[in-house]
Amino acid sequence: MTLTKKPMNGMKDILPAEMRIRDYLISMIKETYGSFGFTSIETPVVESLGNLMSKQGGDNEKLIFKVLKRGEKLHINEAETEEDLSDSGLRYDLTVPLVRFFSNNENELQRPFKALQIGPVFRADRPQRGRFREFYQCDIDIIGEPGNLAETELILATSTLLERIGFKGFTIKINDREILKSMAAYCGFRPEDYDKVFIILDKMDKIGLEGVVSEIENSGLGEHASKKTKELFEELKNSEMPLEMLESILADHIDKSVIENLKTIIRCAGNASGVYNLEFDPTLVRGMGYYTGPVFEIKIGDFGSSVGGGGRYDKMIEKFTGQDIPACGFSIGFERIITILLEQGYKVPDKKRIAYLIEKNMPADRLLEIISEAQEERKTGNEVSMVTMAKNKKFQKTRLEAEGVTGFKEFYINPIL
Amino acid sequence: MTLTKKPMNGMKDILPAEMRIRDYLISMIKETYGSFGFTSIETPVVESLGNLMSKQGGDNEKLIFKVLKRGEKLHINEAETEEDLSDSGLRYDLTVPLVRFFSNNENELQRPFKALQIGPVFRADRPQRGRFREFYQCDIDIIGEPGNLAETELILATSTLLERIGFKGFTIKINDREILKSMAAYCGFRPEDYDKVFIILDKMDKIGLEGVVSEIENSGLGEHASKKTKELFEELKNSEMPLEMLESILADHIDKSVIENLKTIIRCAGNASGVYNLEFDPTLVRGMGYYTGPVFEIKIGDFGSSVGGGGRYDKMIEKFTGQDIPACGFSIGFERIITILLEQGYKVPDKKRIAYLIEKNMPADRLLEIISEAQEERKTGNEVSMVTMAKNKKFQKTRLEAEGVTGFKEFYINPIL
Repeated sequence: MTLTKKPMNGMKDILPAEMRIRDYLISMIKETYGSFGFTSIETPVVESLGNLMSKQGGDNEKLIFKVLKRGEKLHINEAETEEDLSDSGLRYDLTVPLVRFFSNNENELQRPFKALQIGPVFRADRPQRGRFREFYQCDIDIIGEPGNLAETELILATSTLLERIGFKGFTIKINDREILKSMAAYCGFRPEDYDKVFIILDKMDKIGLEGVVSEIENSGLGEHASKKTKELFEELKNSEMPLEMLESILADHIDKSVIENLKTIIRCAGNASGVYNLEFDPTLVRGMGYYTGPVFEIKIGDFGSSVGGGGRYDKMIEKFTGQDIPACGFSIGFERIITILLEQGYKVPDKKRIAYLIEKNMPADRLLEIISEAQEERKTGNEVSMVTMAKNKKFQKTRLEAEGVTGFKEFYINPIL
Repeated sequence: MTLTKKPMNGMKDILPAEMRIRDYLISMIKETYGSFGFTSIETPVVESLGNLMSKQGGDNEKLIFKVLKRGEKLHINEAETEEDLSDSGLRYDLTVPLVRFFSNNENELQRPFKALQIGPVFRADRPQRGRFREFYQCDIDIIGEPGNLAETELILATSTLLERIGFKGFTIKINDREILKSMAAYCGFRPEDYDKVFIILDKMDKIGLEGVVSEIENSGLGEHASKKTKELFEELKNSEMPLEMLESILADHIDKSVIENLKTIIRCAGNASGVYNLEFDPTLVRGMGYYTGPVFEIKIGDFGSSVGGGGRYDKMIEKFTGQDIPACGFSIGFERIITILLEQGYKVPDKKRIAYLIEKNMPADRLLEIISEAQEERKTGNEVSMVTMAKNKKFQKTRLEAEGVTGFKEFYINPIL
């Protein structure tokens, strides 16, 4: 009867060195978001399949780990589909559970409700370097705030967090779904093609304007529209003030208040001290179809891809509960931030770690004194671990030092005089 | 497309008020156990079924939530048993994962390795009041320490934690599996019946000595042995110093060092200040069959059942990995402690919570000033939440107060002079 030593395919054990950084990040998250009035909540890891497969999860719905029915509910021989075998699964994000949580507990929640969630989610993705099938997500959401105070608080809270962990020179890009739509209208795309256009536009980072334009052409979205797209984005690229430029170009296609709103957010959530930039990016799309207003995304230095993002999703709660309640959220890439901190050799602000090496068979009287000493030292904030002294003491100390012990005290049955 | 509002049967949403206590307890656990040199680790929620069903989990192995195989591995039409459909499941405790973790990462771990685990486990138990199908466990374990320093540190660390949370007058009971065995030998039971005898003895709390003796008789474990059991436990009950009494009675049946060892633990991990009692209890069994030496259990005041327990399980790692490595652990009843704290109306040491009520459509210039003020106030440790002022301000304030807001500031577009 031997155990399988490895975790399940695509999952991982987290060792003490990484856990120290994770615990530290979690405590910084709880403290910082807490100071902005976000309150922690938690939902079960297991959700009903009906909720998980309600079409809000996009491609993630194909990656669900399903949980086998139990007892009388399970009829293996008659089963023909996965739904015959399973009615629940592991959550793939924290958004579907949040919406369920809100509708289940609405009467007991503050309005606006400012939620903080940190926890594991599961996706049966093809395992690859740095991507796991179980990983943490960290989301903040504001439910019930229709105005730009929500976006402002979300961006300020998240940038304050990143600053406190020590990140500098990062950029938060911001756009608005309404601006995207009016640009598409201005270029002459048909409304039913907007989503296709946005998916292509989203690739600007990777394939550049030339690539985007040729993909639009090849997708049969209209030659005229693809030309207009090329012109528009060339102008935007060369403009010092792209938002102001759009304001005049799009005057006929967009409510003026949309651009005013975005300007207010950029002004209020921007960072005067210059630790980060909050800037308008007309090519920012954010994948999920449920966004309705401002969308935003964080980029840190050389890490090409996003380390977090979010936006306003005013219609999602209505879709689930029938009530028209506005909502806005920001999700930080918890695992990505951990990876960056590990690669930087980040050191958590730390205390002294003392090992008390105690000779074997120490009499109880003397041991009692040693324990008192340890308990006193612990009260001063030091970490004290009592360890039986090994025969090869030198090797033992080298090894303990390698694992972070910063000092030793040795205790012998017959004190050396 | 409406969502199921309720969590899955037997699982629960955790609301802000409870989360505040949970977060506080977790931070106290990490801080206190950290000061004793325990380091946090984490393992995946999903483990291989082979590991979960390796006969260490007792009855819990019947309560596993199994995860459906995916893709090419899943053949629904040919499936006849659950094992055809599933090769992994949700963990039901943190001990099996710890042993797997240790054998997977042994070379990178300190020796002795002092692990702290806090996390969700899953059991498909019949849901009932206060018992859920997903709940947190919190375990500390010391792997590689053969001597009583391990038991002493585990008991000291746990009692220090309980003291810090504010528990007083609790009792930690301690016994040793070797003493149980030698008592059974002394009474004349056959070695192959010991486990049965211990299961009955474990009920002493509920059915009393009379009940225990009659159940032993009815189980056909020998009339003579049941008489001796009655005599022995009556003597122990009336004895002021039961451990010393056993030392002389059992002299022929037990290695003297076992009782010496227990005396040292009681002396060293006992509490001089009288906040708790550490006392020998010859009827303490602890259910799991894998214990090999000292076992212990915490009882708090009126809460009849245990709020935590543990013991030495020196043979378990060998069973899994072939290596003879001693181990000892203590598990606190995380959910039970939360329940007690909630029932006591426990208040987490708290900061000021200020709501900034901001009139709708506040101009950006003025909003920027308000935000600066909020950011400064957050730095002082206060919680500040910016909220759009409602039409019915009085109702809004009453509601925010009910949810824990302790103060307000109001901001108008045209300041009231």
